[in-house]
Amino acid sequence: MAVYTKVIESDVAEFLNAYDLGTLQTLAPIWQGIENTNYFVITTLGRYVLTLYEKRVQTEDLPFFIGLMEHLAHKALPCPLPIKKRDGQVLGHLAGRHAALFSFLDGRALSRIAPQECGETGHALAAMHNAVADFKMQRPNILSIDGWEKLLSFSKARADEVSSGLGDLLQEELDYLRFRWPQDLPTGVIHADLFPDNVLFNENGLCGMIDFYFACNDILVYDLAVCLNAWCFENNSAFNITKARALVKGYEQIRPLSEGEKKALPILARGSAMRFLLTRLHDWLNQTPDTFVKLKDPLEYLTKLRFHQMVGDVSAYGFDA
Amino acid sequence: MAVYTKVIESDVAEFLNAYDLGTLQTLAPIWQGIENTNYFVITTLGRYVLTLYEKRVQTEDLPFFIGLMEHLAHKALPCPLPIKKRDGQVLGHLAGRHAALFSFLDGRALSRIAPQECGETGHALAAMHNAVADFKMQRPNILSIDGWEKLLSFSKARADEVSSGLGDLLQEELDYLRFRWPQDLPTGVIHADLFPDNVLFNENGLCGMIDFYFACNDILVYDLAVCLNAWCFENNSAFNITKARALVKGYEQIRPLSEGEKKALPILARGSAMRFLLTRLHDWLNQTPDTFVKLKDPLEYLTKLRFHQMVGDVSAYGFDA
Repeated sequence: MAVYTKVIESDVAEFLNAYDLGTLQTLAPIWQGIENTNYFVITTLGRYVLTLYEKRVQTEDLPFFIGLMEHLAHKALPCPLPIKKRDGQVLGHLAGRHAALFSFLDGRALSRIAPQECGETGHALAAMHNAVADFKMQRPNILSIDGWEKLLSFSKARADEVSSGLGDLLQEELDYLRFRWPQDLPTGVIHADLFPDNVLFNENGLCGMIDFYFACNDILVYDLAVCLNAWCFENNSAFNITKARALVKGYEQIRPLSEGEKKALPILARGSAMRFLLTRLHDWLNQTPDTFVKLKDPLEYLTKLRFHQMVGDVSAYGFDA
Repeated sequence: MAVYTKVIESDVAEFLNAYDLGTLQTLAPIWQGIENTNYFVITTLGRYVLTLYEKRVQTEDLPFFIGLMEHLAHKALPCPLPIKKRDGQVLGHLAGRHAALFSFLDGRALSRIAPQECGETGHALAAMHNAVADFKMQRPNILSIDGWEKLLSFSKARADEVSSGLGDLLQEELDYLRFRWPQDLPTGVIHADLFPDNVLFNENGLCGMIDFYFACNDILVYDLAVCLNAWCFENNSAFNITKARALVKGYEQIRPLSEGEKKALPILARGSAMRFLLTRLHDWLNQTPDTFVKLKDPLEYLTKLRFHQMVGDVSAYGFDA
């Protein structure tokens, strides 16, 4: 639903002159994706994805994102490989935007999720966490607990427009999380946004992880908490423990969790619910008439937060007691 | 037909411990290929090709081959990406061999070739020639004209065992080529062995170039001459000008040839025929009882050499006069 920057064929053909990829045959907008503008590009030599970086993405972060994707591809993670221009560089300019070309991953995001696919997602996430162990670049998570404080300060006064009592609930939850947020768990580069629309499948199973533009350094198992929220609720409300069990089992087959990491999962799941509740609330309250992205419902994440608030121990997520 | 080095599952499972690719599920020998031993490897995280380097491949050349494949993959050429171990290195050891793991390209080599596929091969070859312009490593072509002299000295005395008069014919051809071999054409890294069994296709067309273990620095258009021999003869005897036209047209869509390059094509095609005739003759005369690769017929390339000896100008290869 997001093509912010329109480009025409002649501009893309000229952009492609910096590469050795043959001549443009097809240019088609990709409507999925929210942060950046993406086009599907077919040339006489192959199929690619063209990304134009919109203003939400900081220019100084681009080398981190591109370096990360290169690093992961070299470790056999199924992620897009940034394509180098004739001059050896990845980043170019198109239509007033930073732009880059990526290898095309032939798969589809799932509209219906089965436990098997949660398991494969857990696998891939753990593989990513292992693969970044020797990745040297760093990027702080600006959407972690300090960021939530800031987001809440923008939205608190008007939060009750969305749901009665929401402002107070969020402030209490934030105070609770700040006091208990784990400080000594293993950290590394996390995807931080591994929703079903960022994982591609084909007939052989999981074949792609995409959209690394929230990737950052944070607690590794926080990434798993994001996935619990994104993959394991039915119709975005009822928690499906079978899917959760498959997700964490898949993860642990590749990267077993420590006792400390397991114990922290309920609080990290609450934090992850806060993160998406707060960003969605912010976008909801600040929509403008020209907003043409379909806004996501903040209250979906209020439901998820309430579930995690009730969790006693990690057996609720499918771990053996 | 070549699996020189046998490995067992437990050894490969241990080898995989240096990577973050999950656990071994399937190990299957790949019988195609002649120089090295290859296995198809499936783990819980994906599909890969394991290559064990046999003695024909010089250890000191491995960084060139691996660097080249990485370089080409980053320029969007559809070639296997060498996978890095946890320590960031590509090369490991297995069963007394240097060994490496590569991304798996899902396609098949053609058993029947149509002109369309010759065109796509020309495209890909030209794209490779463009993509290596900024590749810094070098490797001399030990199978160019000086190498032929050496090969012939080993085989000349017994060449007539294969075909009456072959020894003299080869010596005369070599003298002819040495005198006329072009000296001032554009050079770069060439594949040098882009036979149909080294190009993979799927339902979308060409999807893989493999086996870069003859790659070296030489005259770029010599690579096209190799393809004329490898792709454009029917049943390895009758030249198919329609396929040749498709091949050179495909090549020129990506990298137009200079007049000098075009004019040199007949002599380069003769040279390419000599190269494969001489190596096949050498292997034929030096087979041992334990040779278990099906030897290729040297005389196939005598027929091709004779065709190119009769070529008047490049219109014979499908260029407009």
